[in-house]
Amino acid sequence: MRTSIATVSLSGSLTEKLTAASRAGFDGVEIFENDLLASPLRPEEIRARCGGLGLGIDLYQPMRDIEAVPEEEFARNLRRARHKFELMRRLGVDTVLVCSSVSPLAVDDDALAAEQLSRLADLAQGFGIRVAYEALAWGRHVSTYDHAWHVVETADHPALGTCLDSFHILSRGTDPKGIEDIPGEKIFFLQLADAPLLAMDVLQWSRHYRCFPGQGGFDVAGLVRHVLRAGYAGPLSLEVFNDVFRQAEAGPTAVDAQRSLLVLQEAVGLADLPAPVVPTGVAFAELVTPDAEPVSEVLGALGFTRAARHRSKPVDLWQAGEARVLVNTGPAARREGTGLAAIGLESPDPAGAARRAEALLAPVLPRRRASEDAPLDAVAAPDGTELFFCATGRPQQPDWRCDFKDVEHAGPATGGVRRIDHLALVQPWHHFDEATLFHRSVLGLSAQESVDVADPYGLLRSRAVTDADGSVRIALTVGAAPADDTVHAQHIALATDDVVAAARRYREAGGLLLPMPANYYDDLAARFEFSEGELEAYRELGILYDRDRYGEFRHCYTRTVGRVFFELVQRDGGYRGYGAQNAPVRLAAQHAARRLTGG
Amino acid sequence: MRTSIATVSLSGSLTEKLTAASRAGFDGVEIFENDLLASPLRPEEIRARCGGLGLGIDLYQPMRDIEAVPEEEFARNLRRARHKFELMRRLGVDTVLVCSSVSPLAVDDDALAAEQLSRLADLAQGFGIRVAYEALAWGRHVSTYDHAWHVVETADHPALGTCLDSFHILSRGTDPKGIEDIPGEKIFFLQLADAPLLAMDVLQWSRHYRCFPGQGGFDVAGLVRHVLRAGYAGPLSLEVFNDVFRQAEAGPTAVDAQRSLLVLQEAVGLADLPAPVVPTGVAFAELVTPDAEPVSEVLGALGFTRAARHRSKPVDLWQAGEARVLVNTGPAARREGTGLAAIGLESPDPAGAARRAEALLAPVLPRRRASEDAPLDAVAAPDGTELFFCATGRPQQPDWRCDFKDVEHAGPATGGVRRIDHLALVQPWHHFDEATLFHRSVLGLSAQESVDVADPYGLLRSRAVTDADGSVRIALTVGAAPADDTVHAQHIALATDDVVAAARRYREAGGLLLPMPANYYDDLAARFEFSEGELEAYRELGILYDRDRYGEFRHCYTRTVGRVFFELVQRDGGYRGYGAQNAPVRLAAQHAARRLTGG
Repeated sequence: MRTSIATVSLSGSLTEKLTAASRAGFDGVEIFENDLLASPLRPEEIRARCGGLGLGIDLYQPMRDIEAVPEEEFARNLRRARHKFELMRRLGVDTVLVCSSVSPLAVDDDALAAEQLSRLADLAQGFGIRVAYEALAWGRHVSTYDHAWHVVETADHPALGTCLDSFHILSRGTDPKGIEDIPGEKIFFLQLADAPLLAMDVLQWSRHYRCFPGQGGFDVAGLVRHVLRAGYAGPLSLEVFNDVFRQAEAGPTAVDAQRSLLVLQEAVGLADLPAPVVPTGVAFAELVTPDAEPVSEVLGALGFTRAARHRSKPVDLWQAGEARVLVNTGPAARREGTGLAAIGLESPDPAGAARRAEALLAPVLPRRRASEDAPLDAVAAPDGTELFFCATGRPQQPDWRCDFKDVEHAGPATGGVRRIDHLALVQPWHHFDEATLFHRSVLGLSAQESVDVADPYGLLRSRAVTDADGSVRIALTVGAAPADDTVHAQHIALATDDVVAAARRYREAGGLLLPMPANYYDDLAARFEFSEGELEAYRELGILYDRDRYGEFRHCYTRTVGRVFFELVQRDGGYRGYGAQNAPVRLAAQHAARRLTGG
Repeated sequence: MRTSIATVSLSGSLTEKLTAASRAGFDGVEIFENDLLASPLRPEEIRARCGGLGLGIDLYQPMRDIEAVPEEEFARNLRRARHKFELMRRLGVDTVLVCSSVSPLAVDDDALAAEQLSRLADLAQGFGIRVAYEALAWGRHVSTYDHAWHVVETADHPALGTCLDSFHILSRGTDPKGIEDIPGEKIFFLQLADAPLLAMDVLQWSRHYRCFPGQGGFDVAGLVRHVLRAGYAGPLSLEVFNDVFRQAEAGPTAVDAQRSLLVLQEAVGLADLPAPVVPTGVAFAELVTPDAEPVSEVLGALGFTRAARHRSKPVDLWQAGEARVLVNTGPAARREGTGLAAIGLESPDPAGAARRAEALLAPVLPRRRASEDAPLDAVAAPDGTELFFCATGRPQQPDWRCDFKDVEHAGPATGGVRRIDHLALVQPWHHFDEATLFHRSVLGLSAQESVDVADPYGLLRSRAVTDADGSVRIALTVGAAPADDTVHAQHIALATDDVVAAARRYREAGGLLLPMPANYYDDLAARFEFSEGELEAYRELGILYDRDRYGEFRHCYTRTVGRVFFELVQRDGGYRGYGAQNAPVRLAAQHAARRLTGG
């Protein structure tokens, strides 16, 4: 189906919005009146610009407070409408959105509303225009889709139909099943938005917190199924009012928006995308660094051994159990200083995984093609992290390990690290919802609940995405405001069976553990009972403790190198979290450590 | 009365919070448990630090989910409490806050709750500690202050009292009058917070949107009166959970907090501050600039004449009607480039106005004391703007005009500018509520409703403060996020009786008007009926139009010089606004102009 987006959903000038919508692959736009008013382009120029960009103009919106008013007021409304219809003719758009009135002048009289809307439609028809009447959730007298349809049905005018908006319907908890009773050709337009499930004033909720389908808590796909069953064949159009999107760069937001529509179309059977290929493990994490020494020291102390070296590039492979960390000192100046640049994900079908990612608008990275390099499928995540789809040690699949030559006489790993437990990625401020949708839809991972984490200098928001059995866990975190605070680094969490032993070995090997405040341990003593010596060991090593209804979690942290640090974790009895309860203490300790080192 | 603040209300490490509270003049603090847990200081060291800063520790908080639970669970709770009481002894604090339970284990049994709280109080008493039991607005079984008091009364234990929290009481709309029925000595603590009137989930409202008394919509002073009538004599303590304050610098937030308590104490008759002296007009606006030429050109074209020059400093006085603009090219490198640095306010009692400002913690600026300078009372507003309290041309009062020597043969002003209509000041991101409270309490101005304004690159929030007859109008605006966007400049709006004539003269004198898009005028034609030629004049000159139920507003803009621009306004028939309806169009035009000039 046609995809469209309202210009109000994107940031910037009208031309910036149009360009972003076109580049992201939308077929059309809804022109939001305020965007037109503020544009220096005349309607004819906007029409030409859209044409040049391959965009249709699917809707002009909104007209407000038209119907069910005293005749004198309605005459003024018709006068206003005539001006707008003339404008629409110049713009080349044939459908206008009329929102149910919120005017104090409006009366509760469906017959009058129908009669006046019919007269408006008469006028519109003369301009070749159709009127799509929509119930605002906070409309004065008409606030539900079935009520709006009743008014339209009563008016019975060929140029008058209804517009359905998923936010206005689902925010009120109305059952959308009745949509199927509306004749499809009378549904003139369909606007789609999701929203987080907030208990708040619906007007504020609508104006500030909408998001793209799949990013909130509404069953938008379910609603679309009803609309399709009714026989609707018009565009799927996004109309999202969101304070964050208003500030974010229009380009990435438009891609995010289009991705959400692709996923939605797949869900309702309108699009046939390559099936998701859920990763089954983490093959490696790749650090780029201008100086391998500090990272190598930490890895060495953690019990990793330098197992192999890339055949043609300055990349070392460090390994401990099934945990692999690549240390890349090549000209990968993509990031400043030391940082986590790439993740290798074990995939049952790397090429299929890449095809799905590409279909969902993830930038595909050039396959590494040095003389001996194995071809590797890779895409970029919204935060710039490169995701490689790998088949480690599987016959009939190119193996990235073949590019590496084993280092002779590398000793065995010693630290008790078994595998990578999870990766924690800091997301750009404006793109938290986008990141979640990306990891869910592209990788087929499931998102856990979003949690607030109190950093001493502001609230962070964190949300994990995982596969069913926890083989792949990625924690996405975003700050409360844009900041260059290097405390909020990426990190790699390493699974051990005995974190006390692992921490002790790390320290004995010269590793520095992040010290935790004594008061934290006094509190643990108040909250839990520990076996003899247990708490003392945690206190000595800076190990944090948490418990959920499934099991227990013990974890500690290395110092930070550049923009990355490591965590040693022991996850017992099916514990599902990431120690979020302890994060404020850990963050405060990292701020304190940074103040000490001036880092 | 004693003033106190919960550490959770301020940003940073515990020691940063304590330092800020002390510097702002608080007598004590509530130690929020998480702040203690994350601190590297041991309880004894925190106690000593507070002592050194002159701060008492008035409360340790919170203990949760204590009461009305099965005996086995309660035994665990007592064990936990004993640990906390030992900690409190080390900390030297004698009151603990216990919040009504939200635990799924809690039962609806007041007798059991009273019995268990009584046993808790027994244990506390042995440590010399008092237990203050508070109803959370979302408590599982106890959620109102009178219910909490009923439980406390039933328990009838000398070490058990109640804690009242204005948010928990007022957010539920409970009538606070019944507080007077509680014996004052059984009110162990009083926590104060205000909040904007939002229709939302009370837990989210409480955790993210609280603000200081006088900054929200609650009648906190009314509640405090009831508490005082009950005979309460403990501290007035602020407990504010606010996402913005969590990120803001602790120092200014603590000053803001203390100011709110001063104003509150004045309102309830506990503090005798110098009375507010409401300004009666704008004496001048002062621009600092490294180069007087560009500003002088604009002023000249607006019909200002260079009327006088400061006797000892490089400051010119430009005048048109009663509008005066000082152009200061001295070493006032306080701001980069050209900006609005100071405002002169006509005051019936300049010294009295300064005394009130000082009593409300506004930094007092050194009086200008050059050889011939008239003494001028001045303070700094939270955004750094200097406010001078002036008595222009009034006998028996020092007149700032005496410092200026008239320029001979200055021609008469020509542009039709009568006076300064309003000043628009951009506020630092974190300090919007603070700015409003400052202007209301220090200057005695009234705040109008806050409005959202859609800039193409994000939502702005704007709120005007005025005196009763509109002689002094200041519009405060804040962006949606920190940004160095110079479009969001300060501006000076100049009142004229005929904005068309004024704009035309300005243009004829070589002034550049900000061009407005043609689409805007098409929309005006749709919305309003104008007299012959009226709209054409607006279109030609870039004049914007608005109407409210009182009157009409016409306004246009000069180009921006550095960080400041001018507006010509014609306000008829008692129009009360500032053309906020037109602001999105104006902001888009300014962005477009900036792109053109690369500014």
